Amino acid sequence: MSKLRIAIIGAGPSGLSQLFAFKQAEQEERIELVCFERQSDWGGLWIYTSQIGIDAHGEPVHSSMYRHLWSNAPKELIEYPDYTFYHHFGCFLPSFLPRALIYDYLTGRAKANNLRRYIRFNTAVRHVDFDDDKNEFNVEVENLNTGSTEYLSFDRVIVAVGHHHVPNMINIDGVDQFPGRVLHSHEFRGADEFVGLNLLIIGGSISAEDIASECYKFGAQLVIISSREEPIGYKWPAEIKTAPILVRMEGRKAHFKDGSSVDNIDAIIFCTGYRHFYPFMAKRFRLHCGVAEIIPPSLYKTIFWIDQPYLAYLGAAKYLYPFSLFELQTALVRDVFLGNVKLPEKDQWQADLNEWKKREKAMVPFDILVWADLELDYMRDMLALLHTHDGNQPLSNFDFDKAQKLLKKYSENKLVDILGFRDISYESTAGMENTKLVQVCKPWLENMDDTIESFLINYREKL
Amino acid sequence: MSKLRIAIIGAGPSGLSQLFAFKQAEQEERIELVCFERQSDWGGLWIYTSQIGIDAHGEPVHSSMYRHLWSNAPKELIEYPDYTFYHHFGCFLPSFLPRALIYDYLTGRAKANNLRRYIRFNTAVRHVDFDDDKNEFNVEVENLNTGSTEYLSFDRVIVAVGHHHVPNMINIDGVDQFPGRVLHSHEFRGADEFVGLNLLIIGGSISAEDIASECYKFGAQLVIISSREEPIGYKWPAEIKTAPILVRMEGRKAHFKDGSSVDNIDAIIFCTGYRHFYPFMAKRFRLHCGVAEIIPPSLYKTIFWIDQPYLAYLGAAKYLYPFSLFELQTALVRDVFLGNVKLPEKDQWQADLNEWKKREKAMVPFDILVWADLELDYMRDMLALLHTHDGNQPLSNFDFDKAQKLLKKYSENKLVDILGFRDISYESTAGMENTKLVQVCKPWLENMDDTIESFLINYREKL
Repeated sequence: MSKLRIAIIGAGPSGLSQLFAFKQAEQEERIELVCFERQSDWGGLWIYTSQIGIDAHGEPVHSSMYRHLWSNAPKELIEYPDYTFYHHFGCFLPSFLPRALIYDYLTGRAKANNLRRYIRFNTAVRHVDFDDDKNEFNVEVENLNTGSTEYLSFDRVIVAVGHHHVPNMINIDGVDQFPGRVLHSHEFRGADEFVGLNLLIIGGSISAEDIASECYKFGAQLVIISSREEPIGYKWPAEIKTAPILVRMEGRKAHFKDGSSVDNIDAIIFCTGYRHFYPFMAKRFRLHCGVAEIIPPSLYKTIFWIDQPYLAYLGAAKYLYPFSLFELQTALVRDVFLGNVKLPEKDQWQADLNEWKKREKAMVPFDILVWADLELDYMRDMLALLHTHDGNQPLSNFDFDKAQKLLKKYSENKLVDILGFRDISYESTAGMENTKLVQVCKPWLENMDDTIESFLINYREKL
Repeated sequence: MSKLRIAIIGAGPSGLSQLFAFKQAEQEERIELVCFERQSDWGGLWIYTSQIGIDAHGEPVHSSMYRHLWSNAPKELIEYPDYTFYHHFGCFLPSFLPRALIYDYLTGRAKANNLRRYIRFNTAVRHVDFDDDKNEFNVEVENLNTGSTEYLSFDRVIVAVGHHHVPNMINIDGVDQFPGRVLHSHEFRGADEFVGLNLLIIGGSISAEDIASECYKFGAQLVIISSREEPIGYKWPAEIKTAPILVRMEGRKAHFKDGSSVDNIDAIIFCTGYRHFYPFMAKRFRLHCGVAEIIPPSLYKTIFWIDQPYLAYLGAAKYLYPFSLFELQTALVRDVFLGNVKLPEKDQWQADLNEWKKREKAMVPFDILVWADLELDYMRDMLALLHTHDGNQPLSNFDFDKAQKLLKKYSENKLVDILGFRDISYESTAGMENTKLVQVCKPWLENMDDTIESFLINYREKL
């Protein structure tokens, strides 16, 4: 019997989770697994590079990462049950970690499981289509080092490129005549480039609040967060102000929707989110999903392409529990593609999707806890599908109630102290090794050195 | 008889020149002309936009233009004989002009000739191939506003996208760990963003010298130009220094090839040039041309694809006399495609190309005047081909000797005063209206306001 040929596009968190899921199944003799990665290393968005715009291969730079970024989610929300932070670093850690540690942890599991051998780095997928006659996918890939192109065939394709690398840029009157630096958060590489400056940040969501905090931490003179939405009510220091949406720049003067204005702006940072972008997919398989959509269209359980169930997207939904979600999605994709889990009849898929879209639409006014409820229910849904067989169950010890309570507490803590929320640690959401609540040894606002070495030295136990 | 269907890809200087050339031929009843432009306006690289990276359509930003850029070539080298600067602005001007004036002039001729009607803006060409059976090109285009795709057929295709919009980025040890701003000249938008800073510029060519001068003009504290080549010998002020090529960054400290180092670098600007990039062309028609190549391979007279002469590239060579060169190239493309000029037999093409490549290879050590000689000879070649019929002759009054003398004088003036060379004006290279030598009213180094209005007010005669 010939092997089932499976292509994974992208070796970021979801792609690596997928490789791990397949490895867990121990079906090497039944499947041929290839993961294509455009970058020269794994870890996707968690790779930091100084490059912006176009990279040394002529490809758009994938990274939206900045120096000195710290995860804004407690590690208890992103921990792999089978591979804990404690296990990886050999010590108990506080909840909020600098990028370098998250990257090391994330790729640590991949390394420990020898997943690198499945990955073809520096390889861009150029085109994916399905040959209805031959009943297989045609995949065109380009080796970015040699420029050579290959045409390959697969039985299943899994899209794991993420959707936080193509900026959702917007035009605002006068910005093009603004005599200072203009960038999107995708091109933001470090707050240390904005010391002493007056910044205008456009956007009302997570990037905006994180970059504003970061710039304040590193010594920006003034940060104005301008957004369409009403401010959430964070208690900002005097150097960070909120404003209605920017309607026009006039030289260095910003005019806001309520008629107010601020002069002497030095730089404008658009934190206007990212757009779904899958140009390599044939038109009929290309996901079109709005910037603000939580539940993507065209996909059953946000994964399986309704009109072509051999095609799966990972992480296409907007999510709060990324790594845990990926664990469930990739287990489901594995079990469905290997024939161990049978999904409901296809004629029920669209109706199911409609139900989720209805629930999403009812989420007005927006509330993060209502969103979390939806996401946890979706995760329960996936677990229920997985429970139809007795294979490898992911997140077996994930406590949904604890996770929801943690998120509630976390939201409250942010409201109480937006610049200090990373100084509070949380209990594990499951019965994992990391049961010790570790307090930070230095508040985030004062901790300017966030390399792995300098961070760990404070927490590592004497062996 | 059905019309000859001609597609032009790009509405920058070469594309507009091509549209103008066809218009001059007055053959509207014989040809169907469509120009596809990805940007929302014409003028190509001469459009200034504050955006970097990815634009509002999700496309890579085309612009490499910066605020306060002035042309580094005297206007006498880029003037259209049939549409002079004097005619356009209604006054005599000095030789070196700010970007806004060049843009206004360049698009002025297009406007005056009503060329906009041929152009489909916000339209990206996705794929071009040739159907050997039907003997026509298949062209896939995408409307960036609607996302809809069309499949069109053409008899001739002209690639006019230029090759100064995809950065030739390079990796140097430690740059990724550098705790400051890193950018390529493609993303450089204005020297006013670098006031008071210590800059490290990588590169030994025109972008490097222009961005260094610009940053000095606007108040950078220190500019180090690091390059592989020996310095040209410009007399830089104390704030601009040259250095051997950077081999490694260690924090903010730059280490150069000769073992020397400089600390406290604030930003690194890669002026490492641009790469030819035509991803939308079918593999067999995709030009592969090195960053430093003057004569591109695969093209007869740097224009006609040797194995498919219905396909033309414009401006694919490295050039010193851009607009004049485009005028000749586009006249030749027009006359060949309309059947008015017969090129030599195809079996001679490769031999001709080999001759030019041989001459290019002999240009060691590099000398700009030797390069100019080659380019002028190439222009003479094109004129000779055009003279086989009595159609519209471009550059009929272009004086090759004068052009060469002008370039020589200009090179000497740069050597004498790299920061003041824009303050010297030159005589016209032809018997054009602009015979009056106009002195600048303010040295470039002191002229901080370079809008059209403020610039012209000094030169406009009372009417």
